[in-house]
Amino acid sequence: MHNVAGPEAHRPGSAGEILQILRDGKARTRRDLAGLTGQARTTVAQRLSVLTDVGLVREAEETAATGGRPSAAFAFDAEGKVVLAIDLGANHATYGVADLHGEILASATDMVRIGDGPKVVMELVLTRLEELLATPGIAERDVLAIGVGLPGPVDQHTGRPTSPPIMPGWDGYDIRTVLADRYCCPVFVDNDANVLALGERAVAWPDVADLMFVKVATGVGAGIISGEHLLHGAQGAAGDLGHVYSKAANDRPCRCGNRGCLESLAGGMSIAARLTERGVPADSPSDIVSLVRAGNLETVLALREAGRALGEVLATCTALFNPRVIVIGGEIVEVGEPLLAGVRESIYSRALPLASRDLRVVVAKSGALGGVIGAARMALDSVFSAQFLDQVLDKEPAEVGLTSA
Amino acid sequence: MHNVAGPEAHRPGSAGEILQILRDGKARTRRDLAGLTGQARTTVAQRLSVLTDVGLVREAEETAATGGRPSAAFAFDAEGKVVLAIDLGANHATYGVADLHGEILASATDMVRIGDGPKVVMELVLTRLEELLATPGIAERDVLAIGVGLPGPVDQHTGRPTSPPIMPGWDGYDIRTVLADRYCCPVFVDNDANVLALGERAVAWPDVADLMFVKVATGVGAGIISGEHLLHGAQGAAGDLGHVYSKAANDRPCRCGNRGCLESLAGGMSIAARLTERGVPADSPSDIVSLVRAGNLETVLALREAGRALGEVLATCTALFNPRVIVIGGEIVEVGEPLLAGVRESIYSRALPLASRDLRVVVAKSGALGGVIGAARMALDSVFSAQFLDQVLDKEPAEVGLTSA
Repeated sequence: MHNVAGPEAHRPGSAGEILQILRDGKARTRRDLAGLTGQARTTVAQRLSVLTDVGLVREAEETAATGGRPSAAFAFDAEGKVVLAIDLGANHATYGVADLHGEILASATDMVRIGDGPKVVMELVLTRLEELLATPGIAERDVLAIGVGLPGPVDQHTGRPTSPPIMPGWDGYDIRTVLADRYCCPVFVDNDANVLALGERAVAWPDVADLMFVKVATGVGAGIISGEHLLHGAQGAAGDLGHVYSKAANDRPCRCGNRGCLESLAGGMSIAARLTERGVPADSPSDIVSLVRAGNLETVLALREAGRALGEVLATCTALFNPRVIVIGGEIVEVGEPLLAGVRESIYSRALPLASRDLRVVVAKSGALGGVIGAARMALDSVFSAQFLDQVLDKEPAEVGLTSA
Repeated sequence: MHNVAGPEAHRPGSAGEILQILRDGKARTRRDLAGLTGQARTTVAQRLSVLTDVGLVREAEETAATGGRPSAAFAFDAEGKVVLAIDLGANHATYGVADLHGEILASATDMVRIGDGPKVVMELVLTRLEELLATPGIAERDVLAIGVGLPGPVDQHTGRPTSPPIMPGWDGYDIRTVLADRYCCPVFVDNDANVLALGERAVAWPDVADLMFVKVATGVGAGIISGEHLLHGAQGAAGDLGHVYSKAANDRPCRCGNRGCLESLAGGMSIAARLTERGVPADSPSDIVSLVRAGNLETVLALREAGRALGEVLATCTALFNPRVIVIGGEIVEVGEPLLAGVRESIYSRALPLASRDLRVVVAKSGALGGVIGAARMALDSVFSAQFLDQVLDKEPAEVGLTSA
C-alpha cells in the first residue's frame, strides 16, 4: 500500500472506476455504466454488487427508459460513513469528522506541543477522536479512512515522519499503524503544508492545476501542486521554503545550524524574537497577531520586512514552478496585509513577465480548518483512488473477464 | 488533443492498454491478455484486430498451452515504423530517426541560428528530415510521430512557443501543424531542457522518479521531473533557472532587463563576455570548451565561479524539489569538472541534511544526442499514452461492452 495515491486512473473495468463515475451523485443504470466504462453489463453488475456489499453504492429510484421497462439505477452512498482528519502543528492539534463529500461535520482543537512527543500527543488525539465520533448524528457512522497532516517531512512509502526538525521523538514514528489499529481503516499521512495546499485548492481553486501554498507560522513551509500533482521529492522534503537562502536575511543564524535562511527572517518565531529585541515583547505568531491588532507599528514594519524576504524567495519559486496562484496562509495571515504587501513588492520586482503576468498572490481562504479540510480531502482522494480501491474492492478480474467470453 | 500526455493509465480495456502491456516485447495469447486486463476474450480479440490493422501488433509464433491445442500469440511490432526527433537550440539543429524502442537509427546536425526565424530554420529542418528518411534501411518505414524540443517556453495545450526570449519571430509559431501537414502524424513539442531531462532519464536513470536536468549552454535552463512527472507550470515556463536571483551575480545586468540573474554569471554567453573583458577573447560555449582544453587558467577559474553561483541556486532547488539526482548538461560539461566542483561546493554548503544525504550531482551521459533521444522518447511515450491511443485507435467501446453482455 502506498501512502497517498495520486490522481492515476482506475484499473480497467474496476469497481474503483465505477465508484469514481458515481461520486458526482448522479444515479446510473447498469447499461449507462457499461457504456461509460466499455465493460460488459455482466461485469458492471458484478462490480456493483461488490460496491453495494461494502456500502459505497446504493440502489436508487428506478428510471424509466424511453418506451421500455424501468431499469434499476445505482448511486454513490455518502450516508452512514465518515473520514477522520487530523492536523498537527507545532503548537496545536485540530481534529475533524467529514462526510464522503469532504464537508466537515464536527471539529475540535487543542493547544498541544508536538515536541511533547508521540505518546502524549497521540493519547490526546485518540481521546478527542472518540469524543468527536460520539457527536449526535455521527455516533452511528463508520470510519472509512483517516487523513493526517504532520509538521515535518513524511516518507511517502511508509507514512512516517523523516528526521522532522521540530518534532523531537517522532522520527520514524508509525502513526499510520497506531490509527489503523484503533479504527481498522486505511490511514494516509503527509506534511502539513501539503495537506493545506490540498485543502485550499478544494475550497477556493478547484480548477487551478498549478498552486503553491505557503504557510507562515512558527516556521515557513510550502505545499506545491504542479500539473495537479502534489510534489513530494525523494525523501518527502519538497517545498522546504524555510531554509532557502535569502539575501534579505543577511547571514542571520538559523535554528537549522545554517545562516541566511528565509525562516531566520520571516518565520513567526524569528519575527517574535526580533520584536522582543526591539523592546516589543512577543513569543509566538499569536502574539504577533495581537500586536498588529493593537496597532503596534514596530510589528507592522517587521511583517513587511518578512514579506519582502518571503517574496524574494517566491520570485525564485515563480521562475521554477510557474504557478498560477500563490496562497499565503498560516496564523499570521489573519493580519496579513503588511506581509502580503511585502511579498508582492518583491515578487513583481523580480519575476519574469511570462511567469508573473497571470500570477495571483492571495491570502488563504480555508481558515483555521484548512488543515483538516485538506487532510479529509487527502483521505477521500486516496481511498477512492485507483490503486487503493482496485486492491481493496475487486474480486479476481480475470475470472469475470474470462467467464463472460 | 493535448500536446504531451503524462503517464496516466489507459482507459479501461482499451487498445492502448493492451499495447502498453505488449511494449515489453513479449508475445501473449488472447487468454493472457484477457487475464491481465480483466477483459472478456472477445473484447481483447477486437482490440488486437484494431492494433494489427494499424500495424502496431503482429501475430507471433504459436505457443503450445500445457496439454491443450496451440493458441495464437501477439507481440508488439516495432518493425517498419519510426519516430522523428528534432532538437533545436540557440545555435544548432539536431535531427534523429528512432525506432519504436527509442533507439536512434540515424542522426544529423547543423549549425543554425534559431534567431533567423521559423521560415529559414524550418526549411532546413524539413530538408534534413527528408534526407534522413532516405537513409538505406529507413527509407521504407512509416513515420508514426514526431517529437520536438525548442529553446523556450512551450504552451502545453497548443504546442506553440510562448514569448520565447531567444527565439525572435517564433512567438506563437505553429510548428506542430507545419510538421503534421508534411508527415500526417501527431507532433509533440516541449521545451529543450524538459526534453533533455526525459532523454537523460531514459539513458541513465530509468528508475529515478525525481530528477533535475540543468542545461548550461548559451543560457541556463532546467527540466524538472518530480514524482515521474515533468513540471510545466501554468505557461510552460517552469524550470527557468537562468533568471533566478543569484547572490554571487552581485547585481550584474542581465539580458532579460533585470539584475543579478544566475545567467548573468553562469550562462555560456556571459562567461565568454567576462573572459573577453579579462583579455581572453571568447564568443561562445564552444570557445570556452577550447580554452579549457588549451589549459587556459582564467577560463577554469571562470567556470568554477559559474559553478558556485549555479550551486547556490541548485541548493534552493534541492530544498524545493528534493531531487534524487541533479544532472548537469549542455555543451560546457564536456570540460565540466571545474563547473561541477563549484556546484558541489555550494550545494553541500547550503542544502539541509535530509534533502542532500542521498543527492547525486552528476554530469550528463546522454551526450550530443541527448536532445533527440529525449524528443524521440517524448514522442513515443505520448503516442503510446492512454489519452492519445484511446482516442486514435479505439472503436466505440460501449458497443463492444454491450454486445458481449
